[in-house]
Amino acid sequence: MSSSVITASIITIGDELLIGQTIDTNSAWMAQQLNAIGIWVKKRIAVGDEREEIWQSLDETIASTDIILITGGLGPTADDITKPLLCDYFGGKMIVDQEALQHVKYIFQHILKRPLLERNMKQAEVPDNCTVLINQRGTAPGMWFEKKDPSSDSKKIIVSLPGVPHEMKGLMQTYIIPRLTNLIADQLIIHRTLLTAGAGESFIAEHIQEWENSLPSQIKLAYLPSYGMVRMRLTAKGRKDSGIENIIDQKFTELQELVKEWLVISADEPLEKAVGDLLQEKGKTISTAESCTGGYLAHLLTSIAGSSAYYKGSVISYDNTIKEQILKVNRITLDNHGAVSRETVTEMLQGLFDSMQTDYGIAVSGIMGPSGGSKEKPTGTVWIAYGSPGNCQTKSFHFRFDRQRNIQLTAVNALLLLFQFIQSEG
Amino acid sequence: MSSSVITASIITIGDELLIGQTIDTNSAWMAQQLNAIGIWVKKRIAVGDEREEIWQSLDETIASTDIILITGGLGPTADDITKPLLCDYFGGKMIVDQEALQHVKYIFQHILKRPLLERNMKQAEVPDNCTVLINQRGTAPGMWFEKKDPSSDSKKIIVSLPGVPHEMKGLMQTYIIPRLTNLIADQLIIHRTLLTAGAGESFIAEHIQEWENSLPSQIKLAYLPSYGMVRMRLTAKGRKDSGIENIIDQKFTELQELVKEWLVISADEPLEKAVGDLLQEKGKTISTAESCTGGYLAHLLTSIAGSSAYYKGSVISYDNTIKEQILKVNRITLDNHGAVSRETVTEMLQGLFDSMQTDYGIAVSGIMGPSGGSKEKPTGTVWIAYGSPGNCQTKSFHFRFDRQRNIQLTAVNALLLLFQFIQSEG
Repeated sequence: MSSSVITASIITIGDELLIGQTIDTNSAWMAQQLNAIGIWVKKRIAVGDEREEIWQSLDETIASTDIILITGGLGPTADDITKPLLCDYFGGKMIVDQEALQHVKYIFQHILKRPLLERNMKQAEVPDNCTVLINQRGTAPGMWFEKKDPSSDSKKIIVSLPGVPHEMKGLMQTYIIPRLTNLIADQLIIHRTLLTAGAGESFIAEHIQEWENSLPSQIKLAYLPSYGMVRMRLTAKGRKDSGIENIIDQKFTELQELVKEWLVISADEPLEKAVGDLLQEKGKTISTAESCTGGYLAHLLTSIAGSSAYYKGSVISYDNTIKEQILKVNRITLDNHGAVSRETVTEMLQGLFDSMQTDYGIAVSGIMGPSGGSKEKPTGTVWIAYGSPGNCQTKSFHFRFDRQRNIQLTAVNALLLLFQFIQSEG
Repeated sequence: MSSSVITASIITIGDELLIGQTIDTNSAWMAQQLNAIGIWVKKRIAVGDEREEIWQSLDETIASTDIILITGGLGPTADDITKPLLCDYFGGKMIVDQEALQHVKYIFQHILKRPLLERNMKQAEVPDNCTVLINQRGTAPGMWFEKKDPSSDSKKIIVSLPGVPHEMKGLMQTYIIPRLTNLIADQLIIHRTLLTAGAGESFIAEHIQEWENSLPSQIKLAYLPSYGMVRMRLTAKGRKDSGIENIIDQKFTELQELVKEWLVISADEPLEKAVGDLLQEKGKTISTAESCTGGYLAHLLTSIAGSSAYYKGSVISYDNTIKEQILKVNRITLDNHGAVSRETVTEMLQGLFDSMQTDYGIAVSGIMGPSGGSKEKPTGTVWIAYGSPGNCQTKSFHFRFDRQRNIQLTAVNALLLLFQFIQSEG
């Protein structure tokens, strides 16, 4: 391996990734894990279940990076061709691995409780020139190959993993990350991310231009606009003994000061985590009343482990009768102002506090599309009420996107409003 | 362009994709759109904001495919380098496009209502050897390049798009898909997908082995295991006049017959869509009571456009007091059996029917982890109640995964149970 920053490629195999049937979440997770131990991911490639394409991707990534992680194509069905291909590529022959065979038998007898077929036993066949990594969560083992690069005399590492996310993650955590960590102990990649709201990326870039231009070459700044906010990320790459950690921390402190007017959170975490941390810190509780977001806001809040400490529940009042019966919104309010109005979300929030007895709450109602809009209230019109029992605030939005994005924007903006509300209380 | 199947590559640019900060959803959407007009995506590549990497990916994809779609790196900040790079790559020089300039000014004055900066005007600078595609949803225009391939005398098309999903989608729908459709009018790519539950992929593969081996060469079968179910997809590629559409339809009918014992739905759609269609067809309504899924079930159901016709609402009773107060679960039941029990979900479902008055309902309670498990009820224990007011069914599960996956598995299995329940009523 070369002495500068260690680089990796990720190859994902499977036609489902090329026809858009599956969204690739594996690569992002793997990249995070590699970054955390100081390995820089230079390239990600997705190819189909085609021998020639996979072979060519191997040639190319082995030539340009030190570590190649491959996922997919290890299943027991005819469309999965990765294993025999890797065997040929590294010039080995297929043998039965006894430990893998025992494991496959165990999984079928005790976990799946299904009859073991000849084709499942084939899962225990592996090339004889790899190290077999037993997959505790499934039947397809991982395979670790090493190859001398003749041009530089350095060693390349090629690892094949199943495409099923939780099986891949198990192998990464049990074997691959610990092994790679040992190999590259002196490298460091550090990210520092903050979130701003209220200014466009151009405006911020203009504001910090001088500072940005003076950044040392090991530090890179990126702007990531999302949901009308802007995430900013500093990345540093270097050796552990180069003092790079102090430099990035200093630059990050400077950046926070420069953008403090728009600063929301100084961490790479979603708003639902920041809201949760704030609530936990203050020992306060929250509940939600959702119409248009249909549970997405509750889902975001409860996706955080430990959220049961501060999150009590939600009423998803998709239908107006539920707004009336459970949240006690007045029929006259609905008739006079409509379900999407300041008056209705205010009453929803009041009804929520009455039934859930929480310290804070959010109520949302809107028209997410594609249908349901009118001239007065076009698709994308949203009302949000937020605050505490004695202090109800409201705000309206007009989003211009598709249903899915309107739902996301509504939820994220509701979280932002509540976060800023709680912070402003001091 | 060659006369066989037209192929495409997708290049996504941005360090956020390589460090795992952003999950790439653009590529999947683009691939679906290309497939729908008969273009086969051969490869997807993700590279960082590095000149050399992007250049090399262009060389490589132009050599191996007919159409190259590039997203990302078009923003107004210093980390975005795609535009000048493309200008150099195609040997052009930068000029100000007057239409793009007018558009940038309009966006800032009328939509963003922010001061227009020098750096924003730069968004209207484009290489002089491309066709400019005005971006109605943002300030960075799309760019359409054409290049003669000297080796085959065929024409390659290279299109650069912004990375912001809704901007990319607007340009694809307005310009790129219609233009590409004109170029490749005689090509066809067809997918037919079905969903099975109750049998492993090996078992199904064994069961249909003979039929699978006899598939004609233009038809490919893939197995996609997901959430304990198996999706199966047939894909056909060919010319419109080759009769390929009839062949795949016939093979798909045969496949449905072969796997009918485990067949759930014969379409590439999520279960929440299938449940919604079934409810709409029968003119029935549904509501949900969620503890452990925390709104994710409601979110799935309401992510379908038009779901307000059959979905009335949900009570997210994350805290036990909400189970008692809104869903009228008996305190004694909670004390004697615990929140995660057949008795509690049964009472939750009953309370749900009483308050929401729907024809069908689902109630779930479980321990999603990482904490909260016990020896009797380990993390992953889930109880689901489902059915209609007069007919309440229950089932328990023991999932073995992380919090996020346990939530997804609970929601998907609840939908499957209710779907099969409604179907069984005839």
